[in-house]
Amino acid sequence: MSQNNKIEITILSIFPEMFNIITNYGIIKKAIESGIVKINVLNLRDFTVDKHKVTDRPGYGGNNGMVMLVEPFFRFYDEYIKKNNFKPYVVLPSPEGRTYNNQIAFDLSKKEKLVFFCGRYEGIDERIKAIVDEEISIGDYVLTGGELPTMVMIEVLLRFVPGVVGSKESVENDSFYNGLLDFSHYTKPAEFRGMKVPEILLSGDHKKIEQFRKKDSILKTILKRPDLFINKELSLEDKKLLVEIIQELSQRNA
Amino acid sequence: MSQNNKIEITILSIFPEMFNIITNYGIIKKAIESGIVKINVLNLRDFTVDKHKVTDRPGYGGNNGMVMLVEPFFRFYDEYIKKNNFKPYVVLPSPEGRTYNNQIAFDLSKKEKLVFFCGRYEGIDERIKAIVDEEISIGDYVLTGGELPTMVMIEVLLRFVPGVVGSKESVENDSFYNGLLDFSHYTKPAEFRGMKVPEILLSGDHKKIEQFRKKDSILKTILKRPDLFINKELSLEDKKLLVEIIQELSQRNA
Repeated sequence: MSQNNKIEITILSIFPEMFNIITNYGIIKKAIESGIVKINVLNLRDFTVDKHKVTDRPGYGGNNGMVMLVEPFFRFYDEYIKKNNFKPYVVLPSPEGRTYNNQIAFDLSKKEKLVFFCGRYEGIDERIKAIVDEEISIGDYVLTGGELPTMVMIEVLLRFVPGVVGSKESVENDSFYNGLLDFSHYTKPAEFRGMKVPEILLSGDHKKIEQFRKKDSILKTILKRPDLFINKELSLEDKKLLVEIIQELSQRNA
Repeated sequence: MSQNNKIEITILSIFPEMFNIITNYGIIKKAIESGIVKINVLNLRDFTVDKHKVTDRPGYGGNNGMVMLVEPFFRFYDEYIKKNNFKPYVVLPSPEGRTYNNQIAFDLSKKEKLVFFCGRYEGIDERIKAIVDEEISIGDYVLTGGELPTMVMIEVLLRFVPGVVGSKESVENDSFYNGLLDFSHYTKPAEFRGMKVPEILLSGDHKKIEQFRKKDSILKTILKRPDLFINKELSLEDKKLLVEIIQELSQRNA
């Protein structure tokens, strides 16, 4: 591990190859190459305690399918701490956890060493949770395994690690960053099948463009995600823009 | 396409290889092999309109990075309709959409032909939305591209297509299915590092086990996801179990 590493992530899964897609593409690939992040993907089978490398068995009590064994997770955990002399922060993707959001991702991005346990989404031995620091759900829907939610969480949290996202696509322009949706984007051609790019974006007047985008962002949020708008604290400028938005809409309807 | 196909999903992405991980593993692989689902992954570059196969350009108005071009998406759409003589239901993973949940997944699972447009998560030409039926967000966090959210949505919705999930792990046992979290699971060994499996699960008394699990499910939901519990309609049985839960907790604390 080079001294550059800001964060080290270890993933425990029965499908380690699945994670090639996050380590081989886009910003995560670049972050690994530049030494900002280290990602270790380990095979849970390497921590099994029997010669058949069994990772799950039928659950006690019947009628609940296969359940992932507690022992391999503990064996990994003991070996990790022995080797690293460091207690990692362990995340279990689970429908029972807090719902993931940018704030949780930001907090995770500050940890030095993160571990993700990928289990079946239904059916892991409850006692595994004794070594889990936090259960996190990516949303109120049921997945088959913890692999996809782990990838989603990693992609989101790495955006908050300094140096991972370039300045041009800085996280400050992201949706939700200010509690509002992002403004609308347009590129060539200026007209396509009768749909024109708003003229102001072609004007070169940066001050006006900024105002236009802020209003677009507020209006979009109100129309598409009123819950976000309601929870946002409004600055004096926000309120001035709100006045303009409503005046403009009234004129158009007059 | 065989007559067995219950649903056909077409994905448009600049990283088509990424989708190998959902088509090569687990329940989705089985569903494809058994002909229940057909998944076509297409490269957006094959629908570009210039010799350099460009899919994005700097956005109008400046300071907003690269923006995905509107033309390749429309070209795909025109060709799809011409070839299939069928208007597909087009989903755009987007932070601006409704938040995905099991109900939305269930509704999508009833569509005959679905299309997912994978764009950069920030920065697609707004006019693409003219051919999008629904923008869907998988949660309030920012991803880099539409690929991971598309995989999440597909994995979730396919669980609702009859035949995809086996009876043993039926969706009726899923978390959220009854508005409650799933009960706790345990497998061998019966005792691990002092942590014992609840004795009742080893009793073989199926009626008692069922009651125990229902109470566990209710208690877990109240402690971990009170918002779910509050929104659930309570049956007479639920209320009887609630009485027992509170009586037992009171006795333990007495």
